[in-house]
Amino acid sequence: MWPIDCIEHKRDGKVLTKEEITRFIDDYTAGRIADYQAAAWLMAIYFQGMTYEETKELTLAMAHSGDMVDLSSIPGIKVDKHSTGGIADTTTLIVAPLVAAAGVPVAKMSGRGLGFTGGTADKLESIPGFHVVLPEETFLEQVRRIGLSLITQSGEIAPADKLLYALRDATATVESIPLIASSIMSKKIASGADAIVLDVKYGDGAFMKTKERARELAKTMVGIGNLAGRPTRAVVTSMEAPLGTAIGNCLEVDEAVEALSGKGGRRLMEVVEAIGAQMLLVGGKVRDEGEGRALIRDLVASGKGLAKFREFVKAQGGSTSWIGKRPLTKAPQVFTAVCTDEGYITRIDGRALGEIAMAMGAGRARKEDKIDPMVGIRLFKELYDPVRPGEALFTLYGKEGADMMALAQQVADHIIVTPDQADTIEPVVSEVIV
Amino acid sequence: MWPIDCIEHKRDGKVLTKEEITRFIDDYTAGRIADYQAAAWLMAIYFQGMTYEETKELTLAMAHSGDMVDLSSIPGIKVDKHSTGGIADTTTLIVAPLVAAAGVPVAKMSGRGLGFTGGTADKLESIPGFHVVLPEETFLEQVRRIGLSLITQSGEIAPADKLLYALRDATATVESIPLIASSIMSKKIASGADAIVLDVKYGDGAFMKTKERARELAKTMVGIGNLAGRPTRAVVTSMEAPLGTAIGNCLEVDEAVEALSGKGGRRLMEVVEAIGAQMLLVGGKVRDEGEGRALIRDLVASGKGLAKFREFVKAQGGSTSWIGKRPLTKAPQVFTAVCTDEGYITRIDGRALGEIAMAMGAGRARKEDKIDPMVGIRLFKELYDPVRPGEALFTLYGKEGADMMALAQQVADHIIVTPDQADTIEPVVSEVIV
Repeated sequence: MWPIDCIEHKRDGKVLTKEEITRFIDDYTAGRIADYQAAAWLMAIYFQGMTYEETKELTLAMAHSGDMVDLSSIPGIKVDKHSTGGIADTTTLIVAPLVAAAGVPVAKMSGRGLGFTGGTADKLESIPGFHVVLPEETFLEQVRRIGLSLITQSGEIAPADKLLYALRDATATVESIPLIASSIMSKKIASGADAIVLDVKYGDGAFMKTKERARELAKTMVGIGNLAGRPTRAVVTSMEAPLGTAIGNCLEVDEAVEALSGKGGRRLMEVVEAIGAQMLLVGGKVRDEGEGRALIRDLVASGKGLAKFREFVKAQGGSTSWIGKRPLTKAPQVFTAVCTDEGYITRIDGRALGEIAMAMGAGRARKEDKIDPMVGIRLFKELYDPVRPGEALFTLYGKEGADMMALAQQVADHIIVTPDQADTIEPVVSEVIV
Repeated sequence: MWPIDCIEHKRDGKVLTKEEITRFIDDYTAGRIADYQAAAWLMAIYFQGMTYEETKELTLAMAHSGDMVDLSSIPGIKVDKHSTGGIADTTTLIVAPLVAAAGVPVAKMSGRGLGFTGGTADKLESIPGFHVVLPEETFLEQVRRIGLSLITQSGEIAPADKLLYALRDATATVESIPLIASSIMSKKIASGADAIVLDVKYGDGAFMKTKERARELAKTMVGIGNLAGRPTRAVVTSMEAPLGTAIGNCLEVDEAVEALSGKGGRRLMEVVEAIGAQMLLVGGKVRDEGEGRALIRDLVASGKGLAKFREFVKAQGGSTSWIGKRPLTKAPQVFTAVCTDEGYITRIDGRALGEIAMAMGAGRARKEDKIDPMVGIRLFKELYDPVRPGEALFTLYGKEGADMMALAQQVADHIIVTPDQADTIEPVVSEVIV
């Protein structure tokens, strides 16, 4: 009897048909299947998994449960980029203007999100005057005109995913590769992307704790994206340490401007090049990864990426007078800590730094929390860098009244300096999955 | 976070603590845990199983979720008997007076139940004047006086099991050994039994389809009953064919009287002896199974069992004038079919016959359905019996207006006569689990 037979089929390890999956999602979204039946179904999926074909059908059913954004009025291959979330990750703010400058249109919808710092929309909103809420026609017109726009989600994107995600959160069924993959991909597909490039992170500071799990998630998303007719590629990257050097909203915008000015950090630029090259590839602008990486470097060196960023900020009402002249960040209290030891930085606990930044006011724990755009942590060294006594290690940007000494001590505790270099140097980008 | 961590522990295959299980059941029964969380938990149990210790804790938590019947005012070891349900199974009506006649008190609460025919309470209610609803004190007094009483469940026995069973039914989590075992045992323990004897059936006509699954369920129930301090034994019996020869409410009472008069069928008496011997053993009346079986045979031969049955029926207000004189069954239409072939009965599809009896009016599909006590099927042959053309095969007892010819044809289709005897004769009782 429907839907018990569908739960039973998955429980018994059968491959669900397109009809079963579509009907289950439609009925659940319409309230014709109870939460308890969906919860049992999700737990059965947790144990039995799903084939790529099933995961694709689940993804499409969830994508079609709400509004489907129509980007067809924009000429060219619209490429979306998604990160599974990390610390000091300002890649989108750098790579979007770079590929737009190369002629790949980027029409991006971004969440505000919960976490250690705000989402990309929050970061951009820290620029005075910048609007992240635009009417859909204005958004589309801007992409047609300058090749780039970023707004918060308009309309109702994948409501089935929203319902199922809340249910998974309450029933210990979050950590399932097909469920994670379909959740991410349904929103990308509903947002109108023709092609998708994913940054799948692993490590202490990431959702996926191990490289193997991240690889599996990446392979699944690439598999289902391609099956769904949306060419998809993924870059598997390390989140064992912060990616960039800035944790905080204004600080991350400043870091993006620096990166577009040719002064980006080693680890951050490795990911920017890897992701950017894949976006240019699926966008049809280059023939191979090497050519893509070279074009990204050219667009940085020539200043074309920074020019596109300026054009983008201006188009959305943001102030541009500061760009290239002064940092955006201006906090009531600033405190710089210097190094006392000689040696190498062999560990930076990104998750711990993220938690400190969040406690300082940089991120939201709940939807209704307000973000303080000015606060955060700026590192001057990256993982594996040599350090000497007296060198600046980090600067803290704090609120009025924050105990800067105590915060600095907390941050320092999570940056480990050892006399010898680490035995193994882990690359930031471990694999590209196509 | 509670209760998500408890779902997660089971999902990850951890052994839950007594505190976790008790709190989960208490919170769920009180409405502090949502149905969708309980559904996810049940599906996790389906996949990961439970140890005997966990299953015992689940059983006790469910037993204590409602009223606990107190049988302590009755002297002696109160032994309960439970069958997982079969076709033409009138064992309780035979074995209860037999062991009561031997001095083992039987204070039985029995459901009306859904199924091919009514439950034991429905069968007894087909005796004119018999009351199955008695005040608790009357029930206890009767057991103290004559050693035997049977009523429908009074009070609220194991409400947590009722809630969880309804949820399992809607979420494809019925077929889990620890969940089935704890559901049955929680009701037995809440009903006040000191010791329990189980008839665990397997085969086409049973809930457990294979002997292996029935064995596993029996072992689990025996394990948790003993852990809970209620000595428990189980007999694994075949339901590949009907146990007795009567399917229908009055017909089964008639069969019980025949059996108590020494005219019981071979298969039925095998189970009566096996179950009865175990009840006498756990009731402390005999020292071994052989002695128990012999005592059961004696109690039949001496007529003491039948006398106890008569006393029992009379005590609950039922008419006894018919006992030993005429059958209780009196239907508007009676049709006897004779055999046309020579050979052996090598298959009787009990489930199919049960469905026909139910369609004739003998059982309930829904709680609110009314049972017709007079209708049903009476077989004259058992599985493996030789048959000759012209011998009576079965009699149908039908309602006014029933198409007896069509019904007879349906029944005949499910009794297979072959020229040669079956290659293997399967014993009715395959194992006793202690």
